[in-house]
Amino acid sequence: MSQQQREMVDQILRRSPVDLGGDVTEQRELFQQLVSARPVPDDVIAEPGVLGGIPVVFVQVASAVTNGVVLYFHGGCFAVGSAQASVGLAADLARKAGVRVVSVDYRLAPEHPWPAALDDALDAYRALVERERGAEPIAVLGESAGANLATAVMLAARNEGSLPQPSCAVLFSPWADLTVPARTSDAGVDPVINAAALRVRAEDYLQGADPLDGLLSPVHADLTGLPPVLIQAGSHEYLLDDAVRLAARAAAHHVAVTLDVTPQVLHVFQAFAAVLDEGDAALTRAGEFLRGHLADRA
Amino acid sequence: MSQQQREMVDQILRRSPVDLGGDVTEQRELFQQLVSARPVPDDVIAEPGVLGGIPVVFVQVASAVTNGVVLYFHGGCFAVGSAQASVGLAADLARKAGVRVVSVDYRLAPEHPWPAALDDALDAYRALVERERGAEPIAVLGESAGANLATAVMLAARNEGSLPQPSCAVLFSPWADLTVPARTSDAGVDPVINAAALRVRAEDYLQGADPLDGLLSPVHADLTGLPPVLIQAGSHEYLLDDAVRLAARAAAHHVAVTLDVTPQVLHVFQAFAAVLDEGDAALTRAGEFLRGHLADRA
Repeated sequence: MSQQQREMVDQILRRSPVDLGGDVTEQRELFQQLVSARPVPDDVIAEPGVLGGIPVVFVQVASAVTNGVVLYFHGGCFAVGSAQASVGLAADLARKAGVRVVSVDYRLAPEHPWPAALDDALDAYRALVERERGAEPIAVLGESAGANLATAVMLAARNEGSLPQPSCAVLFSPWADLTVPARTSDAGVDPVINAAALRVRAEDYLQGADPLDGLLSPVHADLTGLPPVLIQAGSHEYLLDDAVRLAARAAAHHVAVTLDVTPQVLHVFQAFAAVLDEGDAALTRAGEFLRGHLADRA
Repeated sequence: MSQQQREMVDQILRRSPVDLGGDVTEQRELFQQLVSARPVPDDVIAEPGVLGGIPVVFVQVASAVTNGVVLYFHGGCFAVGSAQASVGLAADLARKAGVRVVSVDYRLAPEHPWPAALDDALDAYRALVERERGAEPIAVLGESAGANLATAVMLAARNEGSLPQPSCAVLFSPWADLTVPARTSDAGVDPVINAAALRVRAEDYLQGADPLDGLLSPVHADLTGLPPVLIQAGSHEYLLDDAVRLAARAAAHHVAVTLDVTPQVLHVFQAFAAVLDEGDAALTRAGEFLRGHLADRA
């Protein structure tokens, strides 16, 4: 079944009109259509709200017992996507990990270049820490550009000194190097996320900022002091190198890091868990990682 | 507790007279003393035997229910160590994973240079496959030089064409590059395994063979077709780079690979599970990985 599933997902993406390097207004609409084609289960509660002045969506599974809250940063190259569009994956995660999820609607580029997204992400994190005050353990999770933000939030919290680290972090297909180097192998196997699109969106976000800054590109950061990190990626995605390099750097900086690569799947394949066995299996492992580390702090 | 535990293990190794680059006869004795200082639990059954003409030790935990058999390759830079000396770690693994273990006494260098060790390892694997004939699923596991052999066995089996792959592989602190490049960060944190010792032992093993051959240095191999692999390493060990590079290469070659790095611990820290929480936790994760993949094939 799984090869058929992988080919189907591949075809869905190849036939999709989404071109992440294209006009941002058009792409936001197309991305929203692609994501909202997927029904959210009836027992999922998603309520818009505000946290630390930042718009968020609170996501939970009705009648689920939870231990911990996950601050979630959606993907979309810093330019597209939304907390609402991330509800499906956030809810799958909430179910697998036994957590509540708060998905952050950080400001998008090009209207709001760096550091607007990180400012919003950090404000939301600070407010969550203050609201919970240890009542429930906190983890962070991000996908793609959101994984970049999740990492930057941990680094900014460490640099600030007064904010605690989360219990752990889960990074799906992190976009970890905004210099967008050429992929070292099999470049071009991903039908949607490619170097051309990433370079357009990096320009939109940077607008003159230095992509070698560790808060923009965590593969160039000092990662010392980060909590345990799980990085998942697919071997068919353009950003595989980013995942591998981020794991290597975390290991060299004495972070407890797990790199978990699934063969022959694409960028943020966990979003296709409903129709792709590999996605469901990866989400299960992410859920177990979160359960384990959130229980440690409970 | 854990920092104290790490410091204790560090001191044990620093004060040990073991010098893996030293005279091989002397080092074999010292290594045996170091390892045999550790008592093996009463319920462990370790029986010497022969498999495919190769001396082995059959290890199991009395009255344990098992699913699967693990072919185990001990460490010791291809020059020291033995199946008998590996019984403690093999038994811990047997308990955590719910398996029987067969530990292989492959021939050692310098008396028996490449490819003697791989020939023996492959003979034992072939015999195990023929003996089990699918009755019980098979995994391979190796530590240090043994992880090199475990990987080479999978590659040789693939190249041969007639031998099936194991269900999965677990590699503790793999020695994956016999060219012994300089470590990229924090070189020298490991009190026992260092570049000087590795270079002496690589010479003994190679005796003119090309360390860029993929069967000698899997970081230079085409890894396509390998089964799921779990690689564990410590951030304080000289061979951290080997673990990271092997994982990166496996990912690029579309292997399902998990890299699992524990901070601030040394080479094959799982051997200290009895006194080091990180070692016990890593063995638990290795056991879960084996259980999951062996059950898939059962």
